[in-house]
Amino acid sequence: MLADAGLNRSARIVAIGDARILAGGAAVAGVTLDLQVIGENEALPPGHGPLLIDVRRLAAEDVRRGTLAKPHGDAAMANFRKGLELARAGLVDAVTFSPFNKASMRLSHPSYEDEVVFMNEFLPFHGVAQEFNILPGLWNARVTSHVPISGVAPLITRANVLRGLKLTHAAMSAAGFSPPRIAVAGLNPHAGDGGNFGREDIDEIEPAVRDGKALGIACEGPFPSDTVFVRARKGEFDAVLTMYHDQGQIAMKLLGFEAGVTALGGYPFPITTAAHGSAYDIAGKGIANPGAMRNAMEIAIHMAAADKAARAA
Amino acid sequence: MLADAGLNRSARIVAIGDARILAGGAAVAGVTLDLQVIGENEALPPGHGPLLIDVRRLAAEDVRRGTLAKPHGDAAMANFRKGLELARAGLVDAVTFSPFNKASMRLSHPSYEDEVVFMNEFLPFHGVAQEFNILPGLWNARVTSHVPISGVAPLITRANVLRGLKLTHAAMSAAGFSPPRIAVAGLNPHAGDGGNFGREDIDEIEPAVRDGKALGIACEGPFPSDTVFVRARKGEFDAVLTMYHDQGQIAMKLLGFEAGVTALGGYPFPITTAAHGSAYDIAGKGIANPGAMRNAMEIAIHMAAADKAARAA
Repeated sequence: MLADAGLNRSARIVAIGDARILAGGAAVAGVTLDLQVIGENEALPPGHGPLLIDVRRLAAEDVRRGTLAKPHGDAAMANFRKGLELARAGLVDAVTFSPFNKASMRLSHPSYEDEVVFMNEFLPFHGVAQEFNILPGLWNARVTSHVPISGVAPLITRANVLRGLKLTHAAMSAAGFSPPRIAVAGLNPHAGDGGNFGREDIDEIEPAVRDGKALGIACEGPFPSDTVFVRARKGEFDAVLTMYHDQGQIAMKLLGFEAGVTALGGYPFPITTAAHGSAYDIAGKGIANPGAMRNAMEIAIHMAAADKAARAA
Repeated sequence: MLADAGLNRSARIVAIGDARILAGGAAVAGVTLDLQVIGENEALPPGHGPLLIDVRRLAAEDVRRGTLAKPHGDAAMANFRKGLELARAGLVDAVTFSPFNKASMRLSHPSYEDEVVFMNEFLPFHGVAQEFNILPGLWNARVTSHVPISGVAPLITRANVLRGLKLTHAAMSAAGFSPPRIAVAGLNPHAGDGGNFGREDIDEIEPAVRDGKALGIACEGPFPSDTVFVRARKGEFDAVLTMYHDQGQIAMKLLGFEAGVTALGGYPFPITTAAHGSAYDIAGKGIANPGAMRNAMEIAIHMAAADKAARAA
């Protein structure tokens, strides 16, 4: 990423890590880096071109690639905190983090559940956030997430569906869709089949879609969830708003989400990451595909530019 | 199908329809048929080779291809009834029906909901049936079907999951898998994440999988439903038993189920059909792909042979 001319033209990348580890990575990737290097407590200098904040937390000899170890988790946690601090202070406009190994993070921070929980505590953030799973040309957001199936239906309210539509419209508009075409999945089989298999599609989701349209959101539905992704794959929609976790995840994972991007909307600044894992099995082999990370950075750059434009307006 | 040498070697096909309509279809398909033709009320003659029961319900001039009309629905309904009667009387071993146009069926039989409801009333059948959706190398059965999401969790009981496992094992064993490797999808996100997102995966599905194993069924799970189809697509399993309608349908439709087969297990005889529709838009053009119908007949032939072997044993 740091050697990518296109990315460096569209943003000033501030990398957070150890210079010697980065040099090792550049050698593996076969790229030459041209970075301005500063210490962890130095102010970010004005100007253009990529920066490295050399935090000097890990020595090259402390790193065993592809292994779990507390020093690795300590370094990743500290680097993540540093990025969030810079963004919270307004010194950077967006945060893209590389995949974290959760087991490694927990060696350092035993209460670490996931990035969202950690960020909400650390920033702190008490607002309404929305996770987006992103494939090229197809976004997925969900109205409920880590909820048992028995608890989903009561949460499918007109207000909750409309909130999902607004957050999706805002984030995707920021990312360059004008306007994003959002399909809304029904909750029940055949979207309730006219009320035969549940009323939520008629009583909650349909009114929310009407509300969204009245606000100028390009939304349609509810559509039966077993064909809405087939239609989205054909290009009929830019996004599918799903009602529960697996309704979207089953489709997105079959459609290749391992190569996708996760973005978080609703925070004071855009946050993105690659959807794939830390790939310890190929660490150091020089065969990693940077496509998902590049997409994650490009989406963050778009969203940050839109945020700036909105603040300036 | 009637001109397919392979199918005609492995079974005696009894076609039910009108000779002149069939001749028109053969001309469109560019095949020559060699059939023994009998009247609707004649006994099936002994011997080999394909038969046509010429029901003489429709004249060629009454048929307008690709259009809805009551005579078309009348003919399809009557032919379907005839097939079920022959199977109920033990005169044929299995029924494969071609895709029905539901709107056409309803012109003839206004209370027609779907094939399953009709068959249950007509036969009559009061047992426990199971619908299977079948792609090459991948079967899907579900524990609940046309149930609102709010009503799914109470139906995910140890007994219901075990019943689904038994019916799946029986039908797939009959179809030639020995034994079928069945993955069981979890109900909740991340299969409940150790009980954090619902208890059904631990309290109901896990014991049912243990019960199934104790009966010699090659089953595993519960697995998170958002990755189980990715694993099945790689060949890790022959079937996925899902807990609710869209959990399987979202995946199967993305995996190309339009070219698949639907089979019904639990009835006194095997029943199969192509999963695609009646394709009125290409009627008479000679471009229909018979692959799904051929697969449907092959599965019926396998299952009927296994039923005969089981009765003989």
